[in-house]
Amino acid sequence: MSGQDAFPVLDPASVAPRIGSSYPAPLRGICTEREKRVLGDPLGLTHFGVNLVRLPPGAASALRHWHSLEDEFVMVLEGEATLVTDAGERVLGPGMAAGFPAGKSDGHCLVNRGSRDVVYLEVGDRWPGDEVAYPDDDLMAVWRDSRRVFVHSDGTPY
Amino acid sequence: MSGQDAFPVLDPASVAPRIGSSYPAPLRGICTEREKRVLGDPLGLTHFGVNLVRLPPGAASALRHWHSLEDEFVMVLEGEATLVTDAGERVLGPGMAAGFPAGKSDGHCLVNRGSRDVVYLEVGDRWPGDEVAYPDDDLMAVWRDSRRVFVHSDGTPY
Repeated sequence: MSGQDAFPVLDPASVAPRIGSSYPAPLRGICTEREKRVLGDPLGLTHFGVNLVRLPPGAASALRHWHSLEDEFVMVLEGEATLVTDAGERVLGPGMAAGFPAGKSDGHCLVNRGSRDVVYLEVGDRWPGDEVAYPDDDLMAVWRDSRRVFVHSDGTPY
Repeated sequence: MSGQDAFPVLDPASVAPRIGSSYPAPLRGICTEREKRVLGDPLGLTHFGVNLVRLPPGAASALRHWHSLEDEFVMVLEGEATLVTDAGERVLGPGMAAGFPAGKSDGHCLVNRGSRDVVYLEVGDRWPGDEVAYPDDDLMAVWRDSRRVFVHSDGTPY
């Protein structure tokens, strides 16, 4: 919320970015420079999350992954993002959209293979119990003791 | 879905717009020229809806309204949209975001009071039983016989 007035409006430029990821340290590399500005929460939205994400050249949106219970949507706003899925790679320019339905076991991520920043908007809903699979990495996000934690592919803790 | 390949990608330009609204005929005027391209459904998303909306000069996003159970988010992509709420009016340029939490009884809409088209992205989740209040108009959207219908403010059918 802007705070200056009574309108439910947010200038994303006013939001401090979260830089990097919460992945276990050995897996953080490709997301170290990812800048994520959370937009939905400060506007009071609770049913889904909305983030504005900036990827400098070489950075990725995430490790390739898919969610068990969460729908995801992205729209590229600036730059050229390379979508990576089981089918390979496809470049998405400004205005292109992609969607990842809950439970569809096709791991995906966006990588900036270009020379200028990529900016995209991402939306994901929030289902309790959502878990995340990372087919290329020794990683899963699973629920233990009422919170989601990262574990190795064999279920042992990080 | 693009259909041409295996990627979960959608070019909004390939989506035929829905033009106008489903409001009762006496109330359709301000939304007659609204163009809405549905993006989430063709990508297989079911937990929330995503639309790309174009408002020619003079057109509005909707009658001023608020939802009982649905969170809404908008981001302006092109043009200057005037947000109308209980607090008055505020102009939102490209990149500005707004959010309308479920149950917050502050009716809102976007109006294009400029001379060029406004384009914005809208997201809303889908709670069964969501109803809609229209404080400026003789209108409510309520559930009757398992579907949402428009009725007059006194509950009588249109």
